[in-house]
Amino acid sequence: MRLSKYFVPTLKEVPSDATVPSHILMVRAGMVRMLSAGIYSFLPLGYKVVKKVCEIIREEMDAIGGQEFHLPALNPREIWEETGRVEAFGDILFHIKNRDYVLAPTHEEIMTFHARNVVKSYKDMPQIWYQIQTKFRNEPRPRSGVIRGRQFLMKDSYSFDTSWEALDKSYELHDKAYRKIFDKCGLKYFVVGASSGAMGGTGSEEFMVKSSAGEDTVAYCESCGYAANVEVATSKPFIRERDTESKSLYEIHTPNVKSIDELCAFLNIEEEVCAKSRVYISNGEAVLILMQGNDEVNETKLEKVLGGSVRPAHPDELKEITGADAGSIGPIGFKGKIVADFRLQDRNNLFSGANKNDYHIGGIDLKRDVPQVQYADLRIVQSGEGCPKCDKLLEVFPAIELGHIFKLGTKYSESMKAFFLDESGKEKPIIMGSYGIGVERVIACFIEQNHDTKGIVWNKTLAPFYVHLISINPKNEKVAQTCEKVYDELRQNGIEVLYDDRDASPGFKFNDADLLGMPVQVVIGEKKLKEEKAEVKIRKTDERFDVDLKELINKVKEII
Amino acid sequence: MRLSKYFVPTLKEVPSDATVPSHILMVRAGMVRMLSAGIYSFLPLGYKVVKKVCEIIREEMDAIGGQEFHLPALNPREIWEETGRVEAFGDILFHIKNRDYVLAPTHEEIMTFHARNVVKSYKDMPQIWYQIQTKFRNEPRPRSGVIRGRQFLMKDSYSFDTSWEALDKSYELHDKAYRKIFDKCGLKYFVVGASSGAMGGTGSEEFMVKSSAGEDTVAYCESCGYAANVEVATSKPFIRERDTESKSLYEIHTPNVKSIDELCAFLNIEEEVCAKSRVYISNGEAVLILMQGNDEVNETKLEKVLGGSVRPAHPDELKEITGADAGSIGPIGFKGKIVADFRLQDRNNLFSGANKNDYHIGGIDLKRDVPQVQYADLRIVQSGEGCPKCDKLLEVFPAIELGHIFKLGTKYSESMKAFFLDESGKEKPIIMGSYGIGVERVIACFIEQNHDTKGIVWNKTLAPFYVHLISINPKNEKVAQTCEKVYDELRQNGIEVLYDDRDASPGFKFNDADLLGMPVQVVIGEKKLKEEKAEVKIRKTDERFDVDLKELINKVKEII
Repeated sequence: MRLSKYFVPTLKEVPSDATVPSHILMVRAGMVRMLSAGIYSFLPLGYKVVKKVCEIIREEMDAIGGQEFHLPALNPREIWEETGRVEAFGDILFHIKNRDYVLAPTHEEIMTFHARNVVKSYKDMPQIWYQIQTKFRNEPRPRSGVIRGRQFLMKDSYSFDTSWEALDKSYELHDKAYRKIFDKCGLKYFVVGASSGAMGGTGSEEFMVKSSAGEDTVAYCESCGYAANVEVATSKPFIRERDTESKSLYEIHTPNVKSIDELCAFLNIEEEVCAKSRVYISNGEAVLILMQGNDEVNETKLEKVLGGSVRPAHPDELKEITGADAGSIGPIGFKGKIVADFRLQDRNNLFSGANKNDYHIGGIDLKRDVPQVQYADLRIVQSGEGCPKCDKLLEVFPAIELGHIFKLGTKYSESMKAFFLDESGKEKPIIMGSYGIGVERVIACFIEQNHDTKGIVWNKTLAPFYVHLISINPKNEKVAQTCEKVYDELRQNGIEVLYDDRDASPGFKFNDADLLGMPVQVVIGEKKLKEEKAEVKIRKTDERFDVDLKELINKVKEII
Repeated sequence: MRLSKYFVPTLKEVPSDATVPSHILMVRAGMVRMLSAGIYSFLPLGYKVVKKVCEIIREEMDAIGGQEFHLPALNPREIWEETGRVEAFGDILFHIKNRDYVLAPTHEEIMTFHARNVVKSYKDMPQIWYQIQTKFRNEPRPRSGVIRGRQFLMKDSYSFDTSWEALDKSYELHDKAYRKIFDKCGLKYFVVGASSGAMGGTGSEEFMVKSSAGEDTVAYCESCGYAANVEVATSKPFIRERDTESKSLYEIHTPNVKSIDELCAFLNIEEEVCAKSRVYISNGEAVLILMQGNDEVNETKLEKVLGGSVRPAHPDELKEITGADAGSIGPIGFKGKIVADFRLQDRNNLFSGANKNDYHIGGIDLKRDVPQVQYADLRIVQSGEGCPKCDKLLEVFPAIELGHIFKLGTKYSESMKAFFLDESGKEKPIIMGSYGIGVERVIACFIEQNHDTKGIVWNKTLAPFYVHLISINPKNEKVAQTCEKVYDELRQNGIEVLYDDRDASPGFKFNDADLLGMPVQVVIGEKKLKEEKAEVKIRKTDERFDVDLKELINKVKEII
């Protein structure tokens, strides 16, 4: 493709609304343009990569027996009422004003609708049905370019099986296919055993990549592969032992001391001997939570422990319940339920608030002074803590979900009455699974992992073109002729070439080539032509070398 | 692909809601299923054909320098307000309830939005931008399966040029590309110079195919290629000459005679001497229209003649204006404007209503008795009339629009301020064109033109598989082994095979094979295997012959 005829509007400047590298680079490289918040147009270069990703996905989905469908985005609302998901999705679901339709944010309902009409017998299964297609979600806060948009391409597939064991097989086929897809794309990813949230179901895994643009925070052990969302991640933190002797309780005047750091500085004590107190309201009741030092409460874990949703007490509630403001709360004299994190289990000689403003209490022995206390894992796991599965350390970082596989079971088949007759003629609900990959996210994540200060660094698989051919001075006849010849020869050898034939300065062209990031750059200029040579540059390593023109095609083939 | 593992739910019965052949066959062959009125899901076999059509379109669009985009379906309403098309589309435009978006029914606005941001100089043009993608239109009466749906796949492209001459070139490139696409698909089509309707612009052509499912009626001359929508089509009809002598006017009592046919029977006269009268209201005024015999008024032509919209007078208006009811109206004594079709020009000895119920008048001489009459082309052209361009005859039939090419000019660039600087630095609006192909329609039209009583008859280009391999008795070991071998060998030779390995009766399999319509059927059964032979059947011609197993692959290759 000749750049003079190819619509690739590159930008020098960083677009004002972009903060994450993939977003900045996809706009700067002319791959996408924003139409409205969370709504992007793919321009030719960007869509070329989309098609490559789709082909990789198709290949692996076909390899596990997947059959490609194409389902409508316009869905009658009444089908979504059958599963109660109009309400469950709430405002995330786009509703059509002038007809009773919703726009599909996913396709469990429609796939189940078709399955119930035709999958009638155990003989009709297993089935794996997939599609690659636009989904619509009314995201309240679209961000990071194409990573979280209001419409996006998704490969979604659905498995239909006669038993849970058969579902396990379909699930595993997907697990393997997903690993192959992400491996082929050259992504560094890890797998998180996630809670399935609004999708329903009983088993699921998320395929994630580490990224500053991530909306999830994940604890990951590079050594054993343990990975979990911090909402549920556990760790082996350092736990301090109980002192052999317990001091007596004593009150300390601590004017203006509110935080743990201030308390440590004021009393010259370690963070580890402080019991930070937080009051939560759970089921209408005030509960005091004790955490060691600056450890943070993981509200997801807390909700599991207390059974139901929780919220921090408001300042006026705090005052009414404890008699003090935040920063001066503590377990001594607290009348309600008290739950402490495992790191405080049976500890003594602790400091905490006195439930009296500007006062703290020392010498607290939880065993002796707070007999009603329960213990639980309430901490948000932090980088550097021990992996719960092996003896290495965890890393905690933001991550993006690339794909998700779910065991749905009978949630949809039961509510939508998708039944089949088993071998004994008994009617049973179909056992389903659902599986998704965000197509644009694959691209954005790849760029997050493969870029430098100059631009994108494509690999062979996803590169829109393998070779970026640069003509140093297109007005020079010999340069122009040689470029045309090389351009033709590369293409005749099945190598995709982007040919910068524009009438522009070498610096401008080099910058564009680095920004667009094709794996191999071939530079043809007057000077080297005198020796019948061209310069080759490997984008990833910045390695440059001269190649005889006669050897050029073979050299490029060799590199690829 | 093995049919035992491929989801192709064929049907014996004709679906109750389907009337046109393509709709019936696409459902019966398991290509599509309806989700809701005008909304279809593509199942694997159907989507395989969709992808083939898309590839053919891509190839030809790329060949004319087209660049593939992918634009969002969700569009901010305000962009559509810039061109006034929110109002122009009216209820056809789907509006989102919970955000201020519309669903794109076409993409002129969004393409112009991107062009105005980046196409700034005459150097940036020409551009041809295209996409293949879902469009949404709130059709009041979706019908004929995928032919007129509420969401459909469309290849739409847009050209951006610096001058009208350059637009002519882009337009011609599209014209040629469209002919190649439809030729490759094996469609019999013709080209109609159409009025561009709601799309705006100044020049356009429609690519159409003859079909009982058509919503347009077209007059076509197979000899010279003249083609026009009957709304505007003209012809060389037989025109009767004026009698040498005019009779005097005379009134005839014609009890219960209302229609031309009744009048002819009652008076034993020819249709050609009757002047049928119709009263229309145009600009608040009653106008009498005279047509020869049973010729029908073409209201589009009438509106052009009278300047503005027209409607037939209501029965009570008729009575008030003429003193008579429909069937007894005539020109003699009519006080307002009178327009007669050219076939009545200067005619005499005509019969028409007397403006008195149950009476007609004979001996009418339009020249003598109706001096205020004007003449115009008001007829709806009919089959068998002379072609206006050559000396052959016209055929009139229903047809489907497959594609449409438009010269938009500056309609969108002016209203959306998409300007460029020309070579002299002067700001000018971009000259645009827009071009569309209905992807599903290509498939439906192909089936309309290529089917028989047993099913679809695919050609090589669009067939989802080239060969349908039928195992007569899969339980017979030799049959099964031979089938597997043939299946592998065909695929190794790059031939797509659908392999009916199901445990079903031969009759059932033959019926399915004819219904699905792959070009070549290879039948493998015990009997012929004894002679080391297989039977080959050509679906289109129903030709059957035996082939040595050793020769089978070469024979199939030869046929293809």
